[in-house]
Amino acid sequence: MLLEAIDHRPEPPFAYPVEREKLQVRIRMKKGERIQCRVVYGDRYDPEEDRKEEKLEWVAADERFDWYEGSIPVPTRRVRYVFRLEGKGCTLWYGEKGITPKRTRAGVFQYPYIHVEEVIRVPDWARDAVVYQIFPDRFAKGDPDRDPEGVMPWSADTRPQSDSFYGGDLRGIIDRMPYLADLGVNLLYLTPVFSSPSNHKYDTEDYYRIDPHFGDVEICREMVETAHRYGIRVLFDAVFNHCGAGFFAFRDVREKGESSLYKDWFRIRDFPVVMEPEPNYETFAQNISGMPKLMTHRAEVQDYFLEVAEHWIREVGIDGWRLDVANEVDPEFWRAFRRRVKSIRPESLIVGEIWHDAGPWLRGDQFDSVMNYPFREAVLSFFATGELDAEEFDARLSAARMAVPEPVAFAMFNLLSSHDTERFFTLCNGESQRLRLALLFQMTYPGIPMLYYGDEIGMQGGADPDCRRPMIWEEEKQDRELLAYVRKLTAIRRKCAPLRRGAFRTWSADGEKGLYAFLRRHCEESVGVVLNNSYGRQKWVLDASAWEEGSVLIDALTGNWYPVQGGVVTLSLKGKEGMILVETSWYEEDL
Amino acid sequence: MLLEAIDHRPEPPFAYPVEREKLQVRIRMKKGERIQCRVVYGDRYDPEEDRKEEKLEWVAADERFDWYEGSIPVPTRRVRYVFRLEGKGCTLWYGEKGITPKRTRAGVFQYPYIHVEEVIRVPDWARDAVVYQIFPDRFAKGDPDRDPEGVMPWSADTRPQSDSFYGGDLRGIIDRMPYLADLGVNLLYLTPVFSSPSNHKYDTEDYYRIDPHFGDVEICREMVETAHRYGIRVLFDAVFNHCGAGFFAFRDVREKGESSLYKDWFRIRDFPVVMEPEPNYETFAQNISGMPKLMTHRAEVQDYFLEVAEHWIREVGIDGWRLDVANEVDPEFWRAFRRRVKSIRPESLIVGEIWHDAGPWLRGDQFDSVMNYPFREAVLSFFATGELDAEEFDARLSAARMAVPEPVAFAMFNLLSSHDTERFFTLCNGESQRLRLALLFQMTYPGIPMLYYGDEIGMQGGADPDCRRPMIWEEEKQDRELLAYVRKLTAIRRKCAPLRRGAFRTWSADGEKGLYAFLRRHCEESVGVVLNNSYGRQKWVLDASAWEEGSVLIDALTGNWYPVQGGVVTLSLKGKEGMILVETSWYEEDL
Repeated sequence: MLLEAIDHRPEPPFAYPVEREKLQVRIRMKKGERIQCRVVYGDRYDPEEDRKEEKLEWVAADERFDWYEGSIPVPTRRVRYVFRLEGKGCTLWYGEKGITPKRTRAGVFQYPYIHVEEVIRVPDWARDAVVYQIFPDRFAKGDPDRDPEGVMPWSADTRPQSDSFYGGDLRGIIDRMPYLADLGVNLLYLTPVFSSPSNHKYDTEDYYRIDPHFGDVEICREMVETAHRYGIRVLFDAVFNHCGAGFFAFRDVREKGESSLYKDWFRIRDFPVVMEPEPNYETFAQNISGMPKLMTHRAEVQDYFLEVAEHWIREVGIDGWRLDVANEVDPEFWRAFRRRVKSIRPESLIVGEIWHDAGPWLRGDQFDSVMNYPFREAVLSFFATGELDAEEFDARLSAARMAVPEPVAFAMFNLLSSHDTERFFTLCNGESQRLRLALLFQMTYPGIPMLYYGDEIGMQGGADPDCRRPMIWEEEKQDRELLAYVRKLTAIRRKCAPLRRGAFRTWSADGEKGLYAFLRRHCEESVGVVLNNSYGRQKWVLDASAWEEGSVLIDALTGNWYPVQGGVVTLSLKGKEGMILVETSWYEEDL
Repeated sequence: MLLEAIDHRPEPPFAYPVEREKLQVRIRMKKGERIQCRVVYGDRYDPEEDRKEEKLEWVAADERFDWYEGSIPVPTRRVRYVFRLEGKGCTLWYGEKGITPKRTRAGVFQYPYIHVEEVIRVPDWARDAVVYQIFPDRFAKGDPDRDPEGVMPWSADTRPQSDSFYGGDLRGIIDRMPYLADLGVNLLYLTPVFSSPSNHKYDTEDYYRIDPHFGDVEICREMVETAHRYGIRVLFDAVFNHCGAGFFAFRDVREKGESSLYKDWFRIRDFPVVMEPEPNYETFAQNISGMPKLMTHRAEVQDYFLEVAEHWIREVGIDGWRLDVANEVDPEFWRAFRRRVKSIRPESLIVGEIWHDAGPWLRGDQFDSVMNYPFREAVLSFFATGELDAEEFDARLSAARMAVPEPVAFAMFNLLSSHDTERFFTLCNGESQRLRLALLFQMTYPGIPMLYYGDEIGMQGGADPDCRRPMIWEEEKQDRELLAYVRKLTAIRRKCAPLRRGAFRTWSADGEKGLYAFLRRHCEESVGVVLNNSYGRQKWVLDASAWEEGSVLIDALTGNWYPVQGGVVTLSLKGKEGMILVETSWYEEDL
């Protein structure tokens, strides 16, 4: 055993409670070593001889490590444990003090008490969600009377500038609710809707007012109610890292200088406040004077924004918040935010915007989920650009899953594009089959698939502002085949609980052939997903021990049948083809 | 380079701010590889080409790994960085995405924003502290009128039972303040002093009342003021994990059952509350009915105990709190506790009781320090029982230092004994030379040396309650030589800033010979500590590059001189002898 590879810590993502009385533990070993891992555990106050043990299961391999996982019942909420590792002819004990053949020298790991807030609880409905991101100025226009001045014509050929307005609004979203329901999405994430001078509205002027170009509070309530009638939940965008220059508190500081009651809501280097040519106060990013940074560690700022968070849940019934620039806001504020939001609506969803490894924010006390940009990057590098091969892709995915508690992995916003990125299709070199295979993967992988408005009809778009073109509604300019394909994928996901709720295991990854396959297992049912990321037809014989000998698998996409014979299933995939293999015994191809 | 050994995470203890605009970073490599480590960094919003770089310094080796450390200036409080690792003929980049020869594939680590509460701030005075732990019923009697009924005679021969009272009190502590000052301690930690039926008072009845057997609030204030006049600070013991059965809220629940306003302060399985034969509510440890566990995640419980914490700082002027069973109390409560305590008295010290790896509690938002039981165990295993050799001892110490941010290591309560352990001397097989060498080590190692009352005069004591014998004040029954030795050690520590504030580096560790040596360096001055843990005389030639050629070192303990010649210093140590080597140019042996 390579001792340097072995790692565990009694905290997430290595140890975390999934219930008040159940602790999930993970341990990391050198990749490719076949080790028997056991955890030997007991109450912290029990004598040593009362220890029990559980076998850990291999769950993933990333580039360097194998990961094993298991769970420990903790009826007293207090536990200590040690790992027993059995390799070729040697047994080692691993505890807080080290790795040694002698159990007493290894010490023990301690999870001293399972606190309520440490339990990783993600709303159950999140496992079944498919989210659709809407940039309201660009999705649909329902009320031309609300158009801003100088609105641009809504056309497939238009190219937005950073200050363009197109007049999309909330009425437009209401009108398109049947389209969204047909598409198979059941969660909307709207970029900001509160009053602001910009088209993106990330520079909020009034957190209590719907931007009049979008609608008003009644229309907003109608939108949420309409969505709910369609079984669609709604998330708003919480821009609490910074405000707009027109926000009342910042205006007060500009007017009254140091005597303003709100001067400590910002970090102002000297008075009076100067915005040009360079702001003399801290801002979002680098000197964006129209976005003064809010001092979210201060109690009065926290109180104000906690009220905002509560207000919109109560006022219009939203189902949660997406948190803008979440990684630059005080974590203590987010803990208070979570307590507040969950106390009002326990089933609400909290999704942070974090582009990098978000592990520290996903330990039960802050967010349920984040915008999964590392997912996008991996998918892009495998399906669109081919920069990663299947094995590297698998390793990257595994590392990301192992960086968060398992329930969180099921709630991640797995996106291909967003308002802050180039559109996925635009990076596919014009080949929609690449996008299709990526969508197939996205819709079958653990986590919440996120569609960025228009991706489902093959819209193009380079970097911001080009990725924010108005939605194309003229059917002849939409890729209708792609749309039908996306509908089919959401329908299959809806029908197949294993795709939404099943444990993930890599089935096979072949870097040279460009083949990637994985299994999802839930309540005794397995679904296999097989992807040929190469251009040529490939034959593949895969171990089929997940199913009983003689059972017949059906590809939910084509309806073709594949028998399980001699412990294997034999597949032949066209270039860029993917399959979703389901047992015929419970799945009928009726889509 | 062994890739499996390499580790870094953008959070403590691998990355932590030491100021609002300075980030300390650590990286871990396989032990014994000679790697050049650099960190390449810049503002998160700066373009790639604007990166700067810093070289990291080797700081420690534990059993498996070498540790390198350095710091990054972060004027904008936002930083991203990647490591460049140069080994024999190969250069690797290490970032969030992996370890690779190609920089762009490695990705970057992100420390998105340095928040106020993340800055590791330990009170500056803690680096100069020597703490003395007092168990008030057993330290000194000043007011016999306050004796509990059935008090035991105060004698060197008495053996306490778990329910014995000896009548020690706060007046006794006031009377002995000159003794404590002479001893060279400047911080007292008192086990609980609030009213309670037990001798240890960990089952509090009234958090607002000094136990009448100990004194009253006036005497308590006089005690703290007297201490302060002597330059001695005082910590109280915060027992907030559980209360006593006589605590008003628990009495209310016992009386009123489910209709009690306080029923949610506890976890009661069913009403009415039953204490015998088994409690039907959650308690400290296992069914200790006299210690009902407090639900510290509840707002009203938090409010009550935050008031208690504030009260005693304001009322009698204590300098901080030691936190009982700190690892089983809600971490969110501790965060609020820290904010409250530090807002009243920013220089107060917060010390948790945690017996195992306390890393998660020592990230700036909860405690400044903990009772360092892993330190005790290592010291015991090296000096008292010989279970560890010098190299293993060094590895154990290194791992513990690397598990916490550096400023925290300087504030750890490094103890040899406590009211919860056997006395160190009792485990030394009757050899006081073992205790003396351990004390020498304790007084020269980074962190706050903690003396448990009576250890300084050679008191004996097995496990609780035997370790709580009344202090021996008859001089003829004290080990006066040991007492003089401890005074000498505290005086040397007081005089030598490097011993209090200097960076630690292992100088040499020889497992076979039983020799261990380390350096402490501060403001260009180095102090060398050399310990012969074997019984025989040992000669040792040590690299002396920490000093200039030709300089002369003096052993602060004996006054003997040792010249630095040919880049080395040659030492001959008797069995169980230790030396504290200081440059004569700034140190005069006048103790």
